[in-house]
Amino acid sequence: MSEEPAAGPKESPRGPREVWKKGGRLLSVLLAVNVLLLACTLVSGGAFNKVAVYDTDVFALLTTMMLLAALWIAFYLLRTARCPDAVPYRDAHAGPIWLRGGLVLFGICTLVMDVFKTGYYSSFFECQSAIKILHPLTQAVFVIVQTYFLWVSAKDCVHVHLDLTRCGLMFTLSTNLAIWMAAVVDESVHQAGSHSNASHARLAPDRECHARCPLAGGDCPCATTVCRIFEQGYFYLYPFNIEYSLFASTMLYVMWKNVGRLLASSTHGHGHGHPPSRASLFRETFFVGPVLGLMLLLVGLAVFVIYEVQVSGDGGHTQQALVTYYSFNIACLGLMTLVSLSGSVIYRFDRRAMDHHKNPTRTLDVALLMGAALGQYAISYYSIVAVVVGVPRDTLGALSLAHALLVIAQHTFQNVFIIESLHRGPPGAEPHDAPPKEPCLTFANPDALHTLPACPPTPSLEGPSLEGPQEAMAIILAPRAHWRRRCLRDISLFLLLGNIILWIMPAFGARPHFSNKVEVDFYGYSLWAAIVNICLPFGIFYRMHAVSSLLEVYVLA
Amino acid sequence: MSEEPAAGPKESPRGPREVWKKGGRLLSVLLAVNVLLLACTLVSGGAFNKVAVYDTDVFALLTTMMLLAALWIAFYLLRTARCPDAVPYRDAHAGPIWLRGGLVLFGICTLVMDVFKTGYYSSFFECQSAIKILHPLTQAVFVIVQTYFLWVSAKDCVHVHLDLTRCGLMFTLSTNLAIWMAAVVDESVHQAGSHSNASHARLAPDRECHARCPLAGGDCPCATTVCRIFEQGYFYLYPFNIEYSLFASTMLYVMWKNVGRLLASSTHGHGHGHPPSRASLFRETFFVGPVLGLMLLLVGLAVFVIYEVQVSGDGGHTQQALVTYYSFNIACLGLMTLVSLSGSVIYRFDRRAMDHHKNPTRTLDVALLMGAALGQYAISYYSIVAVVVGVPRDTLGALSLAHALLVIAQHTFQNVFIIESLHRGPPGAEPHDAPPKEPCLTFANPDALHTLPACPPTPSLEGPSLEGPQEAMAIILAPRAHWRRRCLRDISLFLLLGNIILWIMPAFGARPHFSNKVEVDFYGYSLWAAIVNICLPFGIFYRMHAVSSLLEVYVLA
Repeated sequence: MSEEPAAGPKESPRGPREVWKKGGRLLSVLLAVNVLLLACTLVSGGAFNKVAVYDTDVFALLTTMMLLAALWIAFYLLRTARCPDAVPYRDAHAGPIWLRGGLVLFGICTLVMDVFKTGYYSSFFECQSAIKILHPLTQAVFVIVQTYFLWVSAKDCVHVHLDLTRCGLMFTLSTNLAIWMAAVVDESVHQAGSHSNASHARLAPDRECHARCPLAGGDCPCATTVCRIFEQGYFYLYPFNIEYSLFASTMLYVMWKNVGRLLASSTHGHGHGHPPSRASLFRETFFVGPVLGLMLLLVGLAVFVIYEVQVSGDGGHTQQALVTYYSFNIACLGLMTLVSLSGSVIYRFDRRAMDHHKNPTRTLDVALLMGAALGQYAISYYSIVAVVVGVPRDTLGALSLAHALLVIAQHTFQNVFIIESLHRGPPGAEPHDAPPKEPCLTFANPDALHTLPACPPTPSLEGPSLEGPQEAMAIILAPRAHWRRRCLRDISLFLLLGNIILWIMPAFGARPHFSNKVEVDFYGYSLWAAIVNICLPFGIFYRMHAVSSLLEVYVLA
Repeated sequence: MSEEPAAGPKESPRGPREVWKKGGRLLSVLLAVNVLLLACTLVSGGAFNKVAVYDTDVFALLTTMMLLAALWIAFYLLRTARCPDAVPYRDAHAGPIWLRGGLVLFGICTLVMDVFKTGYYSSFFECQSAIKILHPLTQAVFVIVQTYFLWVSAKDCVHVHLDLTRCGLMFTLSTNLAIWMAAVVDESVHQAGSHSNASHARLAPDRECHARCPLAGGDCPCATTVCRIFEQGYFYLYPFNIEYSLFASTMLYVMWKNVGRLLASSTHGHGHGHPPSRASLFRETFFVGPVLGLMLLLVGLAVFVIYEVQVSGDGGHTQQALVTYYSFNIACLGLMTLVSLSGSVIYRFDRRAMDHHKNPTRTLDVALLMGAALGQYAISYYSIVAVVVGVPRDTLGALSLAHALLVIAQHTFQNVFIIESLHRGPPGAEPHDAPPKEPCLTFANPDALHTLPACPPTPSLEGPSLEGPQEAMAIILAPRAHWRRRCLRDISLFLLLGNIILWIMPAFGARPHFSNKVEVDFYGYSLWAAIVNICLPFGIFYRMHAVSSLLEVYVLA
């Protein structure tokens, strides 16, 4: 619940105004919090084999929530289609094309996962509860409906049934977060099971295959090859399902923030900020960033495959695999830290104005980058304490320490770089040195200009209105600005590819946290598993979110 | 990191403006996050007896942090005293008298606690690390310096060394939060120790008195009576220390938000919103609220004493004690829910305008009320699931279920009531029905008025400027408004006293969560202890914070 200023600079004085916007938001937030906590209770209860909450309870709750959310979405689509006044404004910053494209991509992978899941549970249909087959089918319907809804409506600023729309959006958001929680917990249980079977059996003697374990129940074996393929397949597709839920959640949150928002006229709104255009996805670079990044990506994939093969082998090569893994990660993180830093240095010479306009999408991006980084920060600090305080200091301990310190540095400098990039004005909006001569122009409070009827709307800070005497200056400055902007594009592409490889490794199952015994021995298996299983999903989400933010930085540079 | 609108309604166009305020904030937030995570790692590591982090490590870290923070505060006080331009504006909403008064009160209790702690550790000086005696002494110095600092500077809007001030404030804030974490963990360990000794020995066989336990170490017994008194005393004073840290944190956060803020001229700033005056602490009521509330408080104290005596006794009366405890709580929560609801109903007939102005103090209050309520929400949902899914359904289960449901309802309706109250304009500022006639007056965007030089500053919505034709209306409306406002004052006082008794019980050690076997048997001791020990501190903080918010509601009604 952030304080809403009475009227931001972009709000126009036309149209009816809500008496108390925060009151309507409060109701929907309360609904979401309660639904989410109920789901959280059931999901976390279902994760513990000693607790008498079963996965069928969780599936039943999720299926109900998805059906209700799909019904609300259908109602919303019908209503806005019939009432042309329902959506008078559209937020140009919301739902950019790469976010919607990513949503569709991950949605398709989720559909494939649902097919696999249905196939897997159908293999032993006779001894399973019907809800286990109903759940993936409902999820498929929900994903299709929701992806269509977000594709067409992500930019809407709705102005009818405000409270109902807010509650509906928050309920759909809660549904997505509940699905995310369930998927993360299911994956963690699966990972813990495979790890305790392989290398950590001695550390986790009480974690035998229990009621939640898909292979459990001697009377229902998953013996056929098809069944095994389905099972393997759907666990490999989980990372996409997880990202789908989070992408949908961020888009729903921005829609919720935009309910009842009054924007200036459509053209004016586009003139503000920087509407991403499809053509700008391919832009001039020095090719150094993309080439280096691609090399990093390929080397990383090779390291990942070697690591997985060696760790899941007989156990003799674990040490060697860990050294390879950590060495690659340290090199990669060090390089990315230096590149982020040089990006920040370039901005020190950049004279584009900062964009101070209200932009819920950007606010959310910044909050998510800062918040999701906490996951990796926490794991790193626990590692550092374990290595520094712990007694046996060997190569792996030193590597782990270096890795943890570089993770902190990389997250910090990358966040600083991305957040500064997102706040730069559009290219070409460099302020002139001399103090402004026009009577209307005051840099002390440029946003007050919007409210002064005598001035032309948003003069001199917007790209399109750069005309007259400033045009000459823009031409003089062009080569230098161009060089800097090309550099920034290279940097963002390199960081983007680096984040992709750092996403792939943990998302597809690399867990050096457990293979490396330093922290496990220091904290004990259960405490360390709790820390990693709670924090790592945020770390993985951070990588994915950084990729989408860096894509935006690249397009805007 | 919430999005800062380019120029809020209260910011004046005078004075130099920071190029990018969020950049400076970003740095200080990063500093705070890193310091806090390091402290969190050490504190949580120290709480587990199997982990090789000792309480001396935690004490050393906290002592260092407190010394650094005290040094920075001294530097700040010297600098602002020497430079009269450092604080050009003061935020009238920040640091109201009851918050500062509460801070001093809790600060004094913390000093007493430090005396007890020093005395306790001095009792076996020879076999303790010196840091254990240094820590309470440093804390005493820190509390004195910080309380003076917050008393004189809580309203400051600093305008020199912006980044340094932000970092200093955030570091002091992190120090307070680290002290809070350490105190909460220490208290939880102590509670768990006493509970596992008394009634839960069978459930927690592995929780014997370990290195952290103050009585541990057979060579260092706390045998003398004075030593035992010191030990008992300092554990009873912990709740005040915890509240002190949280109060100081909220005030530091508001100061941080106010760094570099440009306000309109001082008188103008006061005209906005509703500056609390000291005289208004005693106001006319119907006496129903305070009398009922005091009765509730006294009955509650009696129930609490009976409960503590019966539970810590031989164990035969535990069932009876729990029935008494739950019955009182259910009655109390039910009454408070109804009263909050009636308060919200009264607001439906209230025609005062909503106050849309920017106010960091209020934003923080709302966020803390909503956030802190999550703790009790979570415990309640876990209780509900345990009772509904669990098999043995007896009286205690039913009482526990009713209690959990009422806790959710009470938090929800009380939050709605308090948040709506905090957003009401000052009394007498009822908007007129007819649309405004003045050419300068537009209700769609009243804040834009500040930037229009032709209009008088903030007309018609401010209390002091209510003159001319509106005065007559105010007089006509007076009797009705007066009746309603008196009612609201009664409601807020009743809720205030109810929250005090609901704060006292858990803060001073009532833990029906463990005496009542329903949840412990369902989740197992360690999981349920983790849930309660993480969530309950937030629930306790919620009560204290609700008390301070309700005091504000009472004064403003």
